[in-house]
Amino acid sequence: MESFKNSAPAVSPVVKRKKHRNFPMVPRVVFGTGSFDQLGEILMPKRINSEAPVIFLVDDVFEGAPLSTRIPAIFNDQIIFISSEEEPKTEQVDALVQKIKLDFDALPSGIVGIGGGTLLDLAKAVAIMLTNKGSASDYQGWDLVQKPAIYHVGIPTISGTGAEVSRTTVLLGPERKLGINSDFTPFDQVVLDPDLTQGVPKEQWFYTGMDCFIHCIESLNGTFLNAFSESYGEKALDLCKQVYLSDIEESDSRDKLMMASWHGGMSIAYSQVGVAHAMSYGLSYVLGVRHGIGNCLVFQYLEEFYPDGVAVFKEIIQKHQIVLPKGICSQLTDAQFEVMIKVALSLEPLWENAIGTDWKTAITAEKLKNIYQKI
Amino acid sequence: MESFKNSAPAVSPVVKRKKHRNFPMVPRVVFGTGSFDQLGEILMPKRINSEAPVIFLVDDVFEGAPLSTRIPAIFNDQIIFISSEEEPKTEQVDALVQKIKLDFDALPSGIVGIGGGTLLDLAKAVAIMLTNKGSASDYQGWDLVQKPAIYHVGIPTISGTGAEVSRTTVLLGPERKLGINSDFTPFDQVVLDPDLTQGVPKEQWFYTGMDCFIHCIESLNGTFLNAFSESYGEKALDLCKQVYLSDIEESDSRDKLMMASWHGGMSIAYSQVGVAHAMSYGLSYVLGVRHGIGNCLVFQYLEEFYPDGVAVFKEIIQKHQIVLPKGICSQLTDAQFEVMIKVALSLEPLWENAIGTDWKTAITAEKLKNIYQKI
Repeated sequence: MESFKNSAPAVSPVVKRKKHRNFPMVPRVVFGTGSFDQLGEILMPKRINSEAPVIFLVDDVFEGAPLSTRIPAIFNDQIIFISSEEEPKTEQVDALVQKIKLDFDALPSGIVGIGGGTLLDLAKAVAIMLTNKGSASDYQGWDLVQKPAIYHVGIPTISGTGAEVSRTTVLLGPERKLGINSDFTPFDQVVLDPDLTQGVPKEQWFYTGMDCFIHCIESLNGTFLNAFSESYGEKALDLCKQVYLSDIEESDSRDKLMMASWHGGMSIAYSQVGVAHAMSYGLSYVLGVRHGIGNCLVFQYLEEFYPDGVAVFKEIIQKHQIVLPKGICSQLTDAQFEVMIKVALSLEPLWENAIGTDWKTAITAEKLKNIYQKI
Repeated sequence: MESFKNSAPAVSPVVKRKKHRNFPMVPRVVFGTGSFDQLGEILMPKRINSEAPVIFLVDDVFEGAPLSTRIPAIFNDQIIFISSEEEPKTEQVDALVQKIKLDFDALPSGIVGIGGGTLLDLAKAVAIMLTNKGSASDYQGWDLVQKPAIYHVGIPTISGTGAEVSRTTVLLGPERKLGINSDFTPFDQVVLDPDLTQGVPKEQWFYTGMDCFIHCIESLNGTFLNAFSESYGEKALDLCKQVYLSDIEESDSRDKLMMASWHGGMSIAYSQVGVAHAMSYGLSYVLGVRHGIGNCLVFQYLEEFYPDGVAVFKEIIQKHQIVLPKGICSQLTDAQFEVMIKVALSLEPLWENAIGTDWKTAITAEKLKNIYQKI
């Protein structure tokens, strides 16, 4: 159901130290069990006319499932089921945009993403590319988007990525894996219905939640941190611990993990992720390892950087009897290691956040290779 | 500098139990020391033309103070200094709107409120009334505002009320003290610069911070609570405790209290305040007691409802050697008590949140009188 590759707000914009970011927040949010059924009412005033459809991009695990019958499609709305087996690609975004433009004379009234990070990122990107010329790959980077996106709504069905609240949409492009980071990226509306996360398989629940846990640890231990990001990060971390280490009721746990994801996404506003995400990107680029798993594979060996966080992580692993894959890097050639390390080291803001401005003296290719070799 | 009367999001909308509120959030926020100096740049793209001014409503404690020279007024912008000694009134809003309409041919490009809850509430109300006909008093209530407000910016200079993030603006009208609760009320932009709260007198710092502390206690102990409001309320409460009970550095304390106010305001989204606010409203209505002080005067006697909260409150009082006024109600006539109790009991959503749907069996006029008599 969920692509673990790149749903986290992994590459946030470089924080300029002298100027504070004017952070765009999701302007509307509804929270609560059953709130999904308010979607029709929410969309109604956003419908431009009966010719301008709402396009629902939905994870294909819901094809034929009860949730799909609750999607409030009317007029000439379109429901497009999409697999999240692979990470979202710029060419996939381009194809979706082309299809929508061919199918309809009018621009859509709105784009609704229903699913995990992959579907949410696709919805954000399609909404942007319906009003901006060229290919999605032209906009990978920071603040390259010129025109406001189409009205877009995010409805997470798994918790942890923070994609529902972030200002990026991470895409695999022809030349790079990088987010479209812009003020037009965040959703105009988010529907947080914890019931939608019922039925998420245990491993996905674990890896996606750990995405949140790990980016909180990285944010809270980063040099970019300020009181805004800290307060969100601490709350998200606290909720993660409640969900993964205490024995709380299932519905309570779903509620809390959904809020952890929300606050975790907010915690990146003025902060940044760190070592685990940088190295996980290398792993993902060379081996196609999914984002959530990649983070965990790296994070377990980062005691040096995040001793407390790694200790808690191991406690969680043990409590839930998760067996992490082993020997992932055992067959790699030197050339592959080199690429992996190069990709990881290219994510400079992440290293600067993790280590400080002089990070290049502390972080060497050999150091990273030593860690990768353990994985 | 700060009116303590009615700056809190005291009377939030009635929560309909079967439908979740689609909550409007402040869509833009900048946080950080010195971020006030980014205001000019933030306003620039919002300027319609050089004839459409930005109106700055500023607490008059800043008249002649260094902050006033940093206000980025250009073209025909107007800076209006306003006393916050008295609580904001609907007629004051009407007069401001009339003045602005007389002074300028064009509608303003924006309204900027700089100050405590009173100034923030005035800015919200003026922004609404520039585009909606009639008197501000016509809109006291829930969802009565028909047209979007003028672009409006909130810049708190004291922390605790949550007015910077709430969807209400509480005004004293000819017939009632009640908020304009609407989706058009929240600010379009908030600037959180903790340095602006330097120089707040200790008592104001205490009473305004306790506004946050008390509405968190009420929210967290209310029957309306859900995981969304809970996570914000818990974090706000945690930050209040750090600020008022641990010995942290001053700048750290300013940062944290600003975030406490922010999260505290958010915690009311799906929740509601409770007994202290309801009774404080009665106190304020009959005796003109300021909101922050009124809350504290009532709260100290609410062990029955909030035992843990009251214990922490007393610890804070002791640590900061605050002496609460005494004998406030000692000279009241029976008729005055009756009015006070009637006002308090009229705030049904607050009682329903605090006690439950059957609150009328538990809360009697006599019970309230007994508490008021102690004050």
